[in-house]
Amino acid sequence: MTLLAAIAGPGDVRALPSSALPVLAGEIRRFLVERVSRAGGHLGPNLGAVELTIALHRVFDSPNDVVLFDTGHQAYVHKVLTGRAAEFETLRRAGGLSGYPSAAESPHDVIENSHASTALSYADGVAKALRLKGSSRRVVAVIGDGALTGGMAWEALNNLAVLEHPVVVVLNDNGRSYAPTTGGLAAHLGSLREGRRRTVFEALGLPYVGPVDGHDVDALESAFVEAAAYGRPVVVHCVTRKGKGYQPAEDDPADCLHAVSAAGSGGGATWTDVFGAEIVSLGAQRPDLVCVTAAMRGPTGLDAFATRFPSRVFDVGIAEQHAVTSAAGLAMAGLHPVVAVYSTFLSRAFDQVLLDVALHRLPVTFVLDRAGVTGPDGPSHHGMWDASLLPVVPGLRLAAPRDAARLRELLGEAVAVADGPTAVRYPKSSVGPDIPALRREGKVDVLRYEPDAVGLLIAVGPMASACLEAAEELAGHGVPVTVVDPRWIAPLDPSLVKIAGEHRLVLAVEDTTAVGALGGRLAQALAVVGAPTRVGTFALPSSFLPHGSRAEILRAHGLDAAGITTTVLKRLKEHS
Amino acid sequence: MTLLAAIAGPGDVRALPSSALPVLAGEIRRFLVERVSRAGGHLGPNLGAVELTIALHRVFDSPNDVVLFDTGHQAYVHKVLTGRAAEFETLRRAGGLSGYPSAAESPHDVIENSHASTALSYADGVAKALRLKGSSRRVVAVIGDGALTGGMAWEALNNLAVLEHPVVVVLNDNGRSYAPTTGGLAAHLGSLREGRRRTVFEALGLPYVGPVDGHDVDALESAFVEAAAYGRPVVVHCVTRKGKGYQPAEDDPADCLHAVSAAGSGGGATWTDVFGAEIVSLGAQRPDLVCVTAAMRGPTGLDAFATRFPSRVFDVGIAEQHAVTSAAGLAMAGLHPVVAVYSTFLSRAFDQVLLDVALHRLPVTFVLDRAGVTGPDGPSHHGMWDASLLPVVPGLRLAAPRDAARLRELLGEAVAVADGPTAVRYPKSSVGPDIPALRREGKVDVLRYEPDAVGLLIAVGPMASACLEAAEELAGHGVPVTVVDPRWIAPLDPSLVKIAGEHRLVLAVEDTTAVGALGGRLAQALAVVGAPTRVGTFALPSSFLPHGSRAEILRAHGLDAAGITTTVLKRLKEHS
Repeated sequence: MTLLAAIAGPGDVRALPSSALPVLAGEIRRFLVERVSRAGGHLGPNLGAVELTIALHRVFDSPNDVVLFDTGHQAYVHKVLTGRAAEFETLRRAGGLSGYPSAAESPHDVIENSHASTALSYADGVAKALRLKGSSRRVVAVIGDGALTGGMAWEALNNLAVLEHPVVVVLNDNGRSYAPTTGGLAAHLGSLREGRRRTVFEALGLPYVGPVDGHDVDALESAFVEAAAYGRPVVVHCVTRKGKGYQPAEDDPADCLHAVSAAGSGGGATWTDVFGAEIVSLGAQRPDLVCVTAAMRGPTGLDAFATRFPSRVFDVGIAEQHAVTSAAGLAMAGLHPVVAVYSTFLSRAFDQVLLDVALHRLPVTFVLDRAGVTGPDGPSHHGMWDASLLPVVPGLRLAAPRDAARLRELLGEAVAVADGPTAVRYPKSSVGPDIPALRREGKVDVLRYEPDAVGLLIAVGPMASACLEAAEELAGHGVPVTVVDPRWIAPLDPSLVKIAGEHRLVLAVEDTTAVGALGGRLAQALAVVGAPTRVGTFALPSSFLPHGSRAEILRAHGLDAAGITTTVLKRLKEHS
Repeated sequence: MTLLAAIAGPGDVRALPSSALPVLAGEIRRFLVERVSRAGGHLGPNLGAVELTIALHRVFDSPNDVVLFDTGHQAYVHKVLTGRAAEFETLRRAGGLSGYPSAAESPHDVIENSHASTALSYADGVAKALRLKGSSRRVVAVIGDGALTGGMAWEALNNLAVLEHPVVVVLNDNGRSYAPTTGGLAAHLGSLREGRRRTVFEALGLPYVGPVDGHDVDALESAFVEAAAYGRPVVVHCVTRKGKGYQPAEDDPADCLHAVSAAGSGGGATWTDVFGAEIVSLGAQRPDLVCVTAAMRGPTGLDAFATRFPSRVFDVGIAEQHAVTSAAGLAMAGLHPVVAVYSTFLSRAFDQVLLDVALHRLPVTFVLDRAGVTGPDGPSHHGMWDASLLPVVPGLRLAAPRDAARLRELLGEAVAVADGPTAVRYPKSSVGPDIPALRREGKVDVLRYEPDAVGLLIAVGPMASACLEAAEELAGHGVPVTVVDPRWIAPLDPSLVKIAGEHRLVLAVEDTTAVGALGGRLAQALAVVGAPTRVGTFALPSSFLPHGSRAEILRAHGLDAAGITTTVLKRLKEHS
C-alpha cells in the first residue's frame, strides 16, 4: 500500500507527518512518469511542481481558499491530490480526465482556460469580490516565470499591489516557459535566485518572500505561512526545476520533456515540419525575412530557421501582443516579419493585428499553427476562431493550404505581398499526400469537376481529402458533385462567388467555428443578388469543444468523408 | 512676428538659442489653447508635453531618428514643430489635420493608431530591424505613465531590456491617464518623483535617468543627451503637469481638460448619460452589481455610480485584458460585473471575453460605449469591430438599443442573464427621442408595418430613426417597407429569421463593418434553406475610416435616411 493510494483529498495530505512527504513526492513522480508516458500530456512542468503543490494543499484549505492555476497544464499534481489519481488512465482521452483544470471534474478546479498569464487577474477579481462580501477566504494563484512575461500579469500585479485582501502569488520559477524565459525579467529572477535584492515586485509595492527551494516541502510550507500572514497580496518566489526527479526530463536540453506524446502515436511529416523547412528556404532567398515567436520557437517549427539565421529570429516571451506590434515595427523599418504562432493564441493580439499592422498596411505574415481542431488540449486550445476574426481585418489576406505543396505555394504568395498583412492557417496533424488540381480558376483550384454536378463542395484547407472521398462516394450514389479548394479564404475571391453561383447547392466544409466562416461570407455575397443557390456552412458548432483526438472530434461533427456524404444527401433530399 | 511663425521644421527649433525656448513654449501654449478650444480636441495632454517635445526635437534628428508617440493625442506640439501649425484650423475636421499622428501628413509621423501602450513594442521592432541592418539611427518612444499600466508596455520593456540598440523611452509622467493613474506603478513613480530609489526599470535591467523636470527644456535636453549616450534602451523619467500653463486646465480636478469639445457643439442627453443614470438605479436594486473600468470612469458614465457605491467600482488602469479577466474573477465569486469600455478598446481583450468569461459561462455584462462611427477621433477610435467579433463568442448575447428606453430595457435584460456574458452597444452621440414599437415578435420590435411591403428594413440600434424616415419617404414613392428593430443582434433570433424570410428584399442597416455583421449572419441562416429572399448588408465598408463628424461619415456611406431610400430604390430596380 503506497501513501498515494490513501490520498482521497487535501485533508489526507494535511494529515501526513512532514517526514512522510518526500516519500509521497517520490510516489507522485513515479505515478506521473508512468501515466503520462502512456497517455501523453504535460510531464516536465508537473514533475517540477510536486512539492509546491503538496505544500499548497497543506497550508491552504481548498476549495474554501481559492486555488488558481495559471496555464493549467501544471495542475496534474493538484488533480492527484484532490482525488483524481484513479482517472489518470483516461487522461486527455475523449470523455476522460482533462489535461487542464475542469470545474466539472472537481470543486477544487476553478479556471478551465489554459492560456497563460491570466491567473493573477482572476485572483484580483475573486479577491475584490471576497473583500466586498467581508469574507476571509484566501486566494492563491500559481504562475510560472514564463507566464509572468505576459502583459496581463503586469496589469494584474499593478492592481494587486493596492488591494487589501490575502492573495498569495506563488511564482513557480523554473527559468522556462516552453523554452528558457527571455528578457529582462528572466535576468532579474536569476539575480534574485542568487541572493535577495530589491525586487521588481517590491518596487511595485508587493511584499516578496523568497527565494524558496521549490523542492523542499518544509521550506515551502514556512514560506506560504509567512506569506499568508501578510493579509494582503504577496509574492512567494519558488525556485523549481522543470522535469525534476526524472532523469530523461532533467537531461532534455530542449524542453525538459515539456510534453510527451501518447505511446504508439506518431505518423508522417506534419504541417509544422513542412513550414519549418520552407521558411528556411524562403529565408535563404530573402534576406529581409525575419521570424517572430512568442516562446514557441520549437513547437512552431522555427528551430531550423534559427540555426541557419540566428540573428533573424526573435523570441519575445509569452507576449503575443508585443510579438505582433514588434513585428509591425520590424516591417516599418523595411523587413518582412513572419509571426509563427498557434491559432488560438493569436486571439490575444487581435487589436494589434487590426490597428498596429493592418491600419498601417504593413507586410507581416502570420503563420497559424494548430488551426482548427487540435485534439487532446481541449476547449481553449482548439484553433477555431482565427478564420472568423481575421476576415474582419481590412486588407488582410488569409490562406488555408490543403496539402504540403500548397502550404509551400501559399506561404510563398503570402511573403510576396508587400502592401498589407497575410496569414496562413494549418492544423496540428500529419499532412498527408499532395492533392493535385485539375485546373485553377482565379485563385480557386478545381479538384474534381462534374459537368452535371448537383452540388458544389468547397473544401477549405485540410478538408480537401475528406471532401474528395465524399465526392467519390456520392458519385457511386448517382450524385455528382464538383469539389473546389479556394486556397485564399479571405477576402472572398470573385471567382469563388462565381463558381458557387453556378450551383444549386453549395456546401462549404470548414475546420473552424461556423459563425463568420467562409460559407457565411459566401452566403452574404450571394444573397445580395438573390442567387437561387443554397449555401450551407458545414463547420464546427458555435460552442467550446471538449478534448479528444482530432479525428474523433471532426468525425463527431460530421467533418469526415462519411459525415459530408450524409449531409449532402440529406440536404438534397430536403429540397428535392 | 512670433518665434513660432518662423518654425518650419525641427531644424528651426534646433537653431534657436536656449534662452528663446521659454518664449517659444509660451507661444505654443497660447496657440494650442486658442486653436483647440475652437476646433475641439485633446488639450491637457499637449499643454503638458510642450517643453518635452521641444527638447526631443533639439536632441534627436527626426525623421532620421525615429520618434514614436504612444497614444497619439499627445502629438499636437510635435505637429506644430514639424510644419503643421497653419493646418490647425482644420484639426479633426473631415479632410483636415488628424488629431493623431498620420504618415500621410508628414514624414515625422510613424504610428497612426492611437490605442495606448503600443509605442514601446513598435520601438522594439524598429530597433531590432535597424540593428540587423547595421544602422545607427536612434529610436525614441514617448509614453505616458498611464499607458505604462497596459500589459503590452511590460512585454516590451522585458524585451527592450536585452536589446542592443539605442532606444530612448521618454516616460511622460503626469500622474494620470485620463483619470489619475492607478495601482502599484503609480505609487512607485510617485516615490521616484520624491527622490531616486532603485526603480522597477533598473530591476528589469533598463538604465533609468531622472526624475527630470518636464517643463525645464535645458534639463530635458541634458537628460536626453545622457540617455542617448548609453547606446542601448534606457528610460528617461520626465515629470510633467497635465494642462500646464493654462489655469482652467491646471485647476480642473476631474481631468485637466483632457479633451475639449469644439465651440458650439453640444446637444441633448447622450447614450452615456442614459447608461450612467440607469446603472445607478440597477445598482440600488442589485447589491451584487459592480462596475469595472479601464481608466475611463468618467467618459463611460460611471461617476454617479462611483459616488453612490464607491466600494463597487473598480478602475484597473489602461488594462482592458485585466479588466475582463478580473471581471471573470468577480463573477466567479458571485457578483455581476458590468465592464464599461469603449467599443474599440474591447478588441484588446477578445481572448479574455472568449476564454476567461464565456468558456466559464460567467455573467459579465459589457457596456460598449462609442460603438460604431465615433467621429473626429479617427480610424482607431471608430467602434466598428465589436459587432463582428462578439457574435463569434459562444453563448454571448449582444444587444443594440435604438433609443433611451430600449437602452434601459436591454441593460436590465442583460444584467438579468445569469448563465453567460452579455453586451450592449451604443454610439457616441445624443440619444434622440424614444421610438415606440407597434408590437413585439419574439425578441424583435416591429416599428412600422406595411401589409403589402415590398421590402423589410432591419434597423440595428440607432439606425432606427433614419430607417423610419426612409420608410416614410419610400411610402411617398409608392414603395411600402416594413421596419423592425431586432434589439438583440447576436445570436440571431429565430423570429428575425422568420420575419426576414417572409420578404423578398431585406436590408439590414448597421453602424458597423459589413464583414460579420447581422445582415451577413442572416443571409447565412436563410441560405441554408434556399429562401428566395435577397438580403443586403447595408453597413460600413471593410476599411479604416478617416476622421470627420459622425453625421458626415454616416452620410458619406449612405447610412442616413436619404442614403437608405436611394439604396432601397436601387436594389428594387436591379431585380424588378
